[in-house]
Amino acid sequence: MVLTMKKRVVGIDIGGTFTKFGLVAENGELTHEGAIPTDKYPKIKDFLEELYKQMQKLIEKEAFDIVGVGVGAPNGNFYSGKIEFAPNLPWKGSVDLGGLLKKHFSVPVIVTNDANAAALGELIYGGGKGMKHFIMITLGTGLGSGFVVDGKLVYGHDGFAGELGHTVVVPEGRQCACGKQGCLETYVSASGIKRTMYKMIASEIEDSELRNVSFHDLDAKMISEAAKKGDPLALKAFDYTGKMLGLKLADAVAHTSPEAIFLFGGLSCAGDLIFAPTRKYMEHYLLPIYRNKIKLLPSALQDKNIAVLGAGALIWNELNNRGRQ
Amino acid sequence: MVLTMKKRVVGIDIGGTFTKFGLVAENGELTHEGAIPTDKYPKIKDFLEELYKQMQKLIEKEAFDIVGVGVGAPNGNFYSGKIEFAPNLPWKGSVDLGGLLKKHFSVPVIVTNDANAAALGELIYGGGKGMKHFIMITLGTGLGSGFVVDGKLVYGHDGFAGELGHTVVVPEGRQCACGKQGCLETYVSASGIKRTMYKMIASEIEDSELRNVSFHDLDAKMISEAAKKGDPLALKAFDYTGKMLGLKLADAVAHTSPEAIFLFGGLSCAGDLIFAPTRKYMEHYLLPIYRNKIKLLPSALQDKNIAVLGAGALIWNELNNRGRQ
Repeated sequence: MVLTMKKRVVGIDIGGTFTKFGLVAENGELTHEGAIPTDKYPKIKDFLEELYKQMQKLIEKEAFDIVGVGVGAPNGNFYSGKIEFAPNLPWKGSVDLGGLLKKHFSVPVIVTNDANAAALGELIYGGGKGMKHFIMITLGTGLGSGFVVDGKLVYGHDGFAGELGHTVVVPEGRQCACGKQGCLETYVSASGIKRTMYKMIASEIEDSELRNVSFHDLDAKMISEAAKKGDPLALKAFDYTGKMLGLKLADAVAHTSPEAIFLFGGLSCAGDLIFAPTRKYMEHYLLPIYRNKIKLLPSALQDKNIAVLGAGALIWNELNNRGRQ
Repeated sequence: MVLTMKKRVVGIDIGGTFTKFGLVAENGELTHEGAIPTDKYPKIKDFLEELYKQMQKLIEKEAFDIVGVGVGAPNGNFYSGKIEFAPNLPWKGSVDLGGLLKKHFSVPVIVTNDANAAALGELIYGGGKGMKHFIMITLGTGLGSGFVVDGKLVYGHDGFAGELGHTVVVPEGRQCACGKQGCLETYVSASGIKRTMYKMIASEIEDSELRNVSFHDLDAKMISEAAKKGDPLALKAFDYTGKMLGLKLADAVAHTSPEAIFLFGGLSCAGDLIFAPTRKYMEHYLLPIYRNKIKLLPSALQDKNIAVLGAGALIWNELNNRGRQ
């Protein structure tokens, strides 16, 4: 009797604080999930050794046929397999993560930007199934994005396409960690809405319970909870956040004419607090021929680990020849 | 003896004032060019009759095998073959131009946006040959654009992708003919730089020969000539125009990560007057990973009728299976 081992892809999502991983089946089933702290390993070698060790622990009881490794990482480059100058990761310069993983696993390895991986997750396993054109926005500490055009992720000439978070929404506006000013993610993200809340507190006179909270203590969830209770300044902060996002989504629509835009994570969990103003301002800034056509939707994978799932999808997508040509 | 007729595509470029046409050979040779005034025919039927008559006159002496008709037109929709609600054309609402032309010619007809046709012309016959990712900007009375991703034009979900001219560069800024405010083409186009020149005259105190010219008399060429002679306000107008364009090109780069951006027509003929500030501000607003990578180039078809050529390329591209899949 011949036993057929179950085929699985290792999905890895590298974030500034944590690196999450798991095994992804072709149908999107995600098992054997684990995590290690990214920022405790200043050397990539030590990081990978710990990653392999933790994976081994989780997986050892079962035998799987690992058919590939997919990685989503900040500044991950699809073409080179490298992580290039990621400001939030401990490894500086250009790190050949793809090459290192390939040596260890001896299977195909694909690396891409974390938000691109999320977009692929949405395409293969989420609300983007069957869509040819959509935009994925991931709202966390920053703002990530991925573009699907003609059913495929857009990587562009150098592999860094789909980067909405660092388009300029206010020229010479807020200082961004990337070195520029006025980037969208300085307005639309967990840290962005916190800055907006502070701006509202400074510029308006309405009272707010958040006037008692220091900048360091304030987080996006507190603003969302205050807004739900009708706090006028928190509501204004959401309206302004939606305005900035709606303005740039209108641009993105004019560029690629998507069927839908998906919002995932953090701020998007605030529901109508963020969806309503975003939709209102997007429609306002859209060219009339695009109005009332574009679906603005929450990710269908909102409660899943979309980045690990998407990292797994990178490989399944390629194996099924649905990848780039 | 069997005579093989030469294969040609009819290329048609419909503009608000003139409609130009010609025969396009597969190698890009453009012959039998002609034009009729668009705005003299309030009825599409009369317009087409005149178009057919003029074409017949030009072509009658030679026998060609017409293999298709390609059309570039404002708001021309690749998917439907229709011109939809084009503000600058005499025919209101939705006009089934593709259907009407097909009836007459009995060959494949493809309709698209005029700037998309120009982008295809650049891809097949111009500086975009061999490139997989670039952006085409056509500067005329307005600002048109087309995106090439993975070697193909991006049409998007509803056929209207690649519309940079109506992305918002200054929220609640200059009134645009499209009904919105602050659209890029109200700043970057022949009419846009004219408005900027007037703004400079009003806000600055330096003298300028253009202070003697009325708004109706002023045109972009006069501003370009004054700038070449060192007129400080005309130079400022070009700098500001380049700033607005550079800002939005930086956005476009972040969306699709192109290898190059081509500028065609009108303002782009002013050379360094427009290229230098556009490049400077684009680099300023670009995320560091994109800097010093993107070629900003004049169209290689600057002296050709790129829109007719591109309209012809629509058909050749499709016949050669290089079209969309």
